[in-house]
Amino acid sequence: MPLKTKEEYIESLRKMKFKLYLFGERVENIVDNPIVRPSMNSVAMTYELAHDPQYEDLMTATSSLTGKKINRFCHLHQSHDDLVKKVKMLRLLGQKTASCFQRCVGMDAINAVDSTTYEIDQKYGTEYHKRFRNWLLKMQENDWTVDGAMTDPKGDRSLSPSQQKDPDMFVHVIEERKDGIIVRGAKCHQTGALNSHEILIMPTIAMGEADKDYAISFALPADSEGIIYIYGRQSCDTRKLEEGTMDLGNAQFGGHESLVILDNVFVPWERVFMYKEYDFSGMLVERFAGYHRQSYGGCKVGVGDVLIGAAALAADYNGASKASHIKDKLIEMTHLNETLYACGIACSCQGRPTATGTYLIDLLLANVCKQNVTRFPYEIARLAEDIAGGLMVTMPSEKDLKNPEIGHYVEKYLRGVFEIPTEHRLRILRLIENLTLGTAAVGYRTESMHGAGSPQAQRIVISRQANFNAKKELAKKIAGITE
Amino acid sequence: MPLKTKEEYIESLRKMKFKLYLFGERVENIVDNPIVRPSMNSVAMTYELAHDPQYEDLMTATSSLTGKKINRFCHLHQSHDDLVKKVKMLRLLGQKTASCFQRCVGMDAINAVDSTTYEIDQKYGTEYHKRFRNWLLKMQENDWTVDGAMTDPKGDRSLSPSQQKDPDMFVHVIEERKDGIIVRGAKCHQTGALNSHEILIMPTIAMGEADKDYAISFALPADSEGIIYIYGRQSCDTRKLEEGTMDLGNAQFGGHESLVILDNVFVPWERVFMYKEYDFSGMLVERFAGYHRQSYGGCKVGVGDVLIGAAALAADYNGASKASHIKDKLIEMTHLNETLYACGIACSCQGRPTATGTYLIDLLLANVCKQNVTRFPYEIARLAEDIAGGLMVTMPSEKDLKNPEIGHYVEKYLRGVFEIPTEHRLRILRLIENLTLGTAAVGYRTESMHGAGSPQAQRIVISRQANFNAKKELAKKIAGITE
Amino acid sequence: MPLKTKEEYIESLRKMKFKLYLFGERVENIVDNPIVRPSMNSVAMTYELAHDPQYEDLMTATSSLTGKKINRFCHLHQSHDDLVKKVKMLRLLGQKTASCFQRCVGMDAINAVDSTTYEIDQKYGTEYHKRFRNWLLKMQENDWTVDGAMTDPKGDRSLSPSQQKDPDMFVHVIEERKDGIIVRGAKCHQTGALNSHEILIMPTIAMGEADKDYAISFALPADSEGIIYIYGRQSCDTRKLEEGTMDLGNAQFGGHESLVILDNVFVPWERVFMYKEYDFSGMLVERFAGYHRQSYGGCKVGVGDVLIGAAALAADYNGASKASHIKDKLIEMTHLNETLYACGIACSCQGRPTATGTYLIDLLLANVCKQNVTRFPYEIARLAEDIAGGLMVTMPSEKDLKNPEIGHYVEKYLRGVFEIPTEHRLRILRLIENLTLGTAAVGYRTESMHGAGSPQAQRIVISRQANFNAKKELAKKIAGITE
Amino acid sequence: MPLKTKEEYIESLRKMKFKLYLFGERVENIVDNPIVRPSMNSVAMTYELAHDPQYEDLMTATSSLTGKKINRFCHLHQSHDDLVKKVKMLRLLGQKTASCFQRCVGMDAINAVDSTTYEIDQKYGTEYHKRFRNWLLKMQENDWTVDGAMTDPKGDRSLSPSQQKDPDMFVHVIEERKDGIIVRGAKCHQTGALNSHEILIMPTIAMGEADKDYAISFALPADSEGIIYIYGRQSCDTRKLEEGTMDLGNAQFGGHESLVILDNVFVPWERVFMYKEYDFSGMLVERFAGYHRQSYGGCKVGVGDVLIGAAALAADYNGASKASHIKDKLIEMTHLNETLYACGIACSCQGRPTATGTYLIDLLLANVCKQNVTRFPYEIARLAEDIAGGLMVTMPSEKDLKNPEIGHYVEKYLRGVFEIPTEHRLRILRLIENLTLGTAAVGYRTESMHGAGSPQAQRIVISRQANFNAKKELAKKIAGITE
Repeated sequence: MPLKTKEEYIESLRKMKFKLYLFGERVENIVDNPIVRPSMNSVAMTYELAHDPQYEDLMTATSSLTGKKINRFCHLHQSHDDLVKKVKMLRLLGQKTASCFQRCVGMDAINAVDSTTYEIDQKYGTEYHKRFRNWLLKMQENDWTVDGAMTDPKGDRSLSPSQQKDPDMFVHVIEERKDGIIVRGAKCHQTGALNSHEILIMPTIAMGEADKDYAISFALPADSEGIIYIYGRQSCDTRKLEEGTMDLGNAQFGGHESLVILDNVFVPWERVFMYKEYDFSGMLVERFAGYHRQSYGGCKVGVGDVLIGAAALAADYNGASKASHIKDKLIEMTHLNETLYACGIACSCQGRPTATGTYLIDLLLANVCKQNVTRFPYEIARLAEDIAGGLMVTMPSEKDLKNPEIGHYVEKYLRGVFEIPTEHRLRILRLIENLTLGTAAVGYRTESMHGAGSPQAQRIVISRQANFNAKKELAKKIAGITE
Repeated sequence: MPLKTKEEYIESLRKMKFKLYLFGERVENIVDNPIVRPSMNSVAMTYELAHDPQYEDLMTATSSLTGKKINRFCHLHQSHDDLVKKVKMLRLLGQKTASCFQRCVGMDAINAVDSTTYEIDQKYGTEYHKRFRNWLLKMQENDWTVDGAMTDPKGDRSLSPSQQKDPDMFVHVIEERKDGIIVRGAKCHQTGALNSHEILIMPTIAMGEADKDYAISFALPADSEGIIYIYGRQSCDTRKLEEGTMDLGNAQFGGHESLVILDNVFVPWERVFMYKEYDFSGMLVERFAGYHRQSYGGCKVGVGDVLIGAAALAADYNGASKASHIKDKLIEMTHLNETLYACGIACSCQGRPTATGTYLIDLLLANVCKQNVTRFPYEIARLAEDIAGGLMVTMPSEKDLKNPEIGHYVEKYLRGVFEIPTEHRLRILRLIENLTLGTAAVGYRTESMHGAGSPQAQRIVISRQANFNAKKELAKKIAGITE
Repeated sequence: MPLKTKEEYIESLRKMKFKLYLFGERVENIVDNPIVRPSMNSVAMTYELAHDPQYEDLMTATSSLTGKKINRFCHLHQSHDDLVKKVKMLRLLGQKTASCFQRCVGMDAINAVDSTTYEIDQKYGTEYHKRFRNWLLKMQENDWTVDGAMTDPKGDRSLSPSQQKDPDMFVHVIEERKDGIIVRGAKCHQTGALNSHEILIMPTIAMGEADKDYAISFALPADSEGIIYIYGRQSCDTRKLEEGTMDLGNAQFGGHESLVILDNVFVPWERVFMYKEYDFSGMLVERFAGYHRQSYGGCKVGVGDVLIGAAALAADYNGASKASHIKDKLIEMTHLNETLYACGIACSCQGRPTATGTYLIDLLLANVCKQNVTRFPYEIARLAEDIAGGLMVTMPSEKDLKNPEIGHYVEKYLRGVFEIPTEHRLRILRLIENLTLGTAAVGYRTESMHGAGSPQAQRIVISRQANFNAKKELAKKIAGITE
Repeated sequence: MPLKTKEEYIESLRKMKFKLYLFGERVENIVDNPIVRPSMNSVAMTYELAHDPQYEDLMTATSSLTGKKINRFCHLHQSHDDLVKKVKMLRLLGQKTASCFQRCVGMDAINAVDSTTYEIDQKYGTEYHKRFRNWLLKMQENDWTVDGAMTDPKGDRSLSPSQQKDPDMFVHVIEERKDGIIVRGAKCHQTGALNSHEILIMPTIAMGEADKDYAISFALPADSEGIIYIYGRQSCDTRKLEEGTMDLGNAQFGGHESLVILDNVFVPWERVFMYKEYDFSGMLVERFAGYHRQSYGGCKVGVGDVLIGAAALAADYNGASKASHIKDKLIEMTHLNETLYACGIACSCQGRPTATGTYLIDLLLANVCKQNVTRFPYEIARLAEDIAGGLMVTMPSEKDLKNPEIGHYVEKYLRGVFEIPTEHRLRILRLIENLTLGTAAVGYRTESMHGAGSPQAQRIVISRQANFNAKKELAKKIAGITE
């Protein structure tokens, strides 16, 4: 059966030979590195829950290629139902990890590449889709985690790829060989880079002919020769190196981002899925971004559930849960969170099949979904900080609480409702800190803002999809304007 | 075939003997009254489009009772698909009328009464559901417009029905007879009262035993003996009495609301669908309100489409459509409008069958939908007013434009882009005025706020449906709190 | 003494020979016209309160020209204290009239023209300032209401004055004579046009040399030969023609706007204050707009006070005033209203003297003030509509209430708290309707949006005044960036 | 002269014998501790700028007690001008430190205690004011930094001080002696605890007679016997222990908070300023909170200036500064920031003298100011994160950039506009991270929320100060309601 266990997944990572730098040093044992490990635990949850009968319906699917039961993260969406279940699966995982669990970029990438390669082939008689499906079969068979990689460094934002002073600011082909191509460039902000088996590279913007060397897509084993990873710093990252678990807020789960450098990397032809068909670059970007904007209507909602629960507990532990303004703030947090979910669900159930049969979400609603994600988690976080109170950022360290000389002061003076252990109160506040200011804030705030495209990117799609002309005709009719 | 034409509908109204007062006078010919008529035109659109092949799929359904093709407004929802189509139908009608078309209260009422009466019967061995289905068959057969009537005057909001100093502040039974009951009271804000064939009365709040005389539901012909209608004033209502059409903004369509007084009205037993089963009063309210909160995710979105189109035209006519801030405001209006739609769709496709098989929307998401409706139309209207410019409220009357002495001044000085006739520009601004300040603002603003329950009513449901305890457990798990 | 009484003011208007068109007809007796009169009553309040000892300090000032006690509306601001008192005076008048009282455009115009003419003379050796001061002496001596007139029709917004296909889209000189000039064009949206003694014309935008014929400023008696007024329609305007007072909401006070056409009007040289000095056009606009953006931090706050009071009463009359969400909404309304006031006060006390000694407000803060005014009154209105409930737009007319046959039904069923007469409740709801949808909404909403310049106009000034370079230097210093 | 230099200030701290715990360990050399030192540097700036002639007018004042030139932080406000200058001084210091500089709590405390003690004495014939003024003379003479300490742990929020199960949840007297009193309890979240010479204790809430033992105020040397400090953790605090300066964002300045425990501390009578006069507890709280809510209209605005500058630089370095949406976001940030400033200025210039002559701010506007501070910095931060882009939280560490093997990759791929050194870009992003997620976010976000009282505290004051009854009378008058 192609469903790896959580343990098999972790073991499979041990075999990978990533070239990783962290705080200026090469990391050899990545799996046991305390900074990196929580991000693997998050991905591992996607394997673990797939074996849990109560979540089977959400976590697994029947492969449209083989008829086998596979992890839904390896699945091509075959129906509205698949799209809706994807959102529900992501919400579930957000609830279980309270962090970015990173595996969705791969799922979103395979679905986008699948339909796009098919349409390229239709137009140009190429065979990208066959190559892609062969690779995809291996992904499903091996239950791979795949890192969908789109975002180039971009250099000067006012210039196109070929206009940049440094030609490597977007991934591009630098040499064509009989057996494949040599590529150079980098991908930024790569979520889930170091807990993936494969990396699936896509172009990052719509391109014109001048940029055709940049219009490429391909897959590689994530530890291929020439790939270098430099780990991104997160707020409070080094708390993971300290003794104890309290100050982490979330001791077990997390996410990570890396700068992924492709330093003259060889890609064999059978792993190349787009090669200079620049006119399809926009389609691939739009579809991947569309799927990923849908995703946020699930995963961030799940994390939001945890944050709402934490805020409600903080109020309980404070003795404030009966105050009407507290209740109202919890309702508002819920209202905003469920609005995001509604958008995730709606763009799913309004999806449509592409030419290859793989279902695509409704693009307008998916972009509306993501646009709300750039706003509401910030307001939910603000309300959580309101309910939590200032103690969240002024309380002493776990070491103070555990210190034999002064721990009793912390114990005594930071107790809220008398019956609740002080440690419980502090733990909940640290969790809220983690989500609003700490490592998980990177996922819950910044990623909500910029992941799957910054807010302005959604506005551009909304504008294109809004069909203002049709709306103008409606208005003219009502206003009695005839031309 | 049970599908009336638009003309048959209007004729059927001519036969009704409503007792209507308007501006202190009894109105005999209601159908041709210029104040009332636009509201009939709006309802007529629901008949007209049902005969249009391109809208057949949305506007009609196959009766679950008879297998006949019926207007969707007479239909019991049998699936998610039915619920989604309802939302799409309402959006379509909003686009075609730019007003409240009033017929959905009946559709929402029959669906709520259907499942609730079934469950009352299950518990108490009563036969309300059979009675209701008999009546419903007639509704479908005759393609009735039904006025679902819920909102009582309520008197002093801090008191329950039986605590009010005047016992008639909520509709109640005042006498029980062998053949039926005598009821007294009133329903406020009744949308679509005078263009309906029947009125379906429901209680307005959850009730306790002390209020059991108020826990009643029944249907009556809308022109029954003892029912008195007093017409509600709308902003700019009397412009409909003036010559010309321009100053109306929307010359053809509108909505209306009435105070409906039940002055000792007799109801035969076969038309009584709830009688003192106070413990089901809350369920009926919750379900009707839930359906109606879903509705607003369709109808208000359709009206919003017209307003967005009108604002876009106003910018075109001004020569301002290329300004980046104008484009951005149109995008924001679209984003907000589509967020409402997403909520309408999501609560539909996440619905579930009730015991009677009739589908109910997802209550949490429907309330989230309506909560957003109490906010976003106001912001969309604000942005429309921003784009429209001050001229919307300072321009002269149509009579000035048409005046032979000074019309040329208006023509000359109120021209925007030279190629566009001044009249077109003024017409579009009057449409925006109609929607933001005029007769249609009652539907687009106030009804968005209070229709289907005021904002606080949704917050109470959201709070009840939020399952804070489950969220607290998620947070404890992540924070490492064990008890 | 130069302080007219309210009665003298009204009498002085009777002597004016305005050429006014309203609903396509010439109006002869303007003063007693029920549509127009409320706007005169509002201005009259500025005369009446000037005689009231308790408001003397706010309503009057000592003329810097003559040392006489004059109405503050005729005063050149001589200090921070004068600027602050202006704001307080406007708030007071907003509280007393619940409408736009229209006289501030003249006050803002004289202060802007005073300092600008002085600076033109300094540069060009002209004598505009002397001419202006002579005219101003008469204004103070006669306690004139002056209509400051800035906004031209503008035609196609993407074109400058001289680029328009119709050269009259901005007021311009068409002939120069020995004794004066002939001008043509129009001013739109003129608040207070028909209750003013004089009109003070200013250019509407910064201009370049190509537009120098448009860079003119001058004063005229408001009823001069060649000036034609066409009255602007307001929402619900014709309710003023009905019997009764209840449905008006505010039976006594209002505002008005007119299209003012200058059809080849002669202006003698001693009344010309700017003539083709296009390089000062921007300064005049910026200063007038700055003063007027300050004004809104007073007048709209006063109207907001009435609306907050009305909403609080509506809640009392409903029996809902103890609900925590109601209390919270009233607090929010107050918070927003006082934020506007804070901006009005701050830009006043941070003002500075110009070269002529006349005080100018702080431009950045005045624009920030107005920018908030384009948002908060809309939200205050939304909250008022929330508290008011749907009855505000569904209740019957006064004629229904007074009707002998059915009035008792209205009386009975629309009663809220039993002890409060139904009429009181309806009156308060009509007042809220008036402010949010009716005649006063034009002032409270649309004028808040577009008066003194549309929102984007403030953003441009904010951008220019923000001094981003200085802020960048602060950031570099902290970040340790040296170049 | 009583103005210490920055160096003298630092030296004076070396002589203090604080009992401080940090990460579970006793810290002996606090001044040179890298975690603590930045907070001292911030306070030191208040000494340094007082010697800078260009800031002399803001930073210093003439003592109302001695006529000597003193640091404004030691000054009793004598006029509106003093109150306005306070706000400007705080904005200046926010600009120079981009952090909380902590010294204002002392200034706000002395002004509140001054007027309150005078009024207690007036009522009860006590001599608190004389004692206080004697102590204040020393403060001015020695240019002390004083830690105004108000916030008790509070335990269960639903219980008053005397109802708590642990009686020490609020500071209280536990023994009365001939020469003074013994007190016990703690103060939470104490900003600036360990860089102050003295601590001035005040009660934290209005109290009734049952809580009179808690109604006490007094001053102590900050290193008195029995005072124990436990240092609060901040997000990213341990980055200060790492090599390098880049990852800090702000390498020089910061703030801190401590839990301050008073473990049976002796206070001599001459340092006791309130003793069981519980009826004045509310006044002292209201005044201190009022002053401190005013403060935020200055200090947070100054920090906001730095953040706006940083965001503008980030856009420059990205090549995105010409995009209209970027410009619009910078305008919005400025608009919000200046609205806060307007509130700070307005509550200052609308202040009034208290009985002792010391000026108090306008309480309503000061609370409105702080209420906006609980919202706008969050939105400013959100917009800064939008402009900054995802790189802010995904970029490698300084050690990676400086690493000889891989530094060139970071240098190459994270360059934006080619001419700008990569390091500059990273430094600016780290500064934005510091302000939105890092150590300074504690000051810019959480302290904006909870400092000087959580949002609900301001709403309660706004409600009390709103005078709803007067507003109701205005509305009744306009609506024609007579009783």
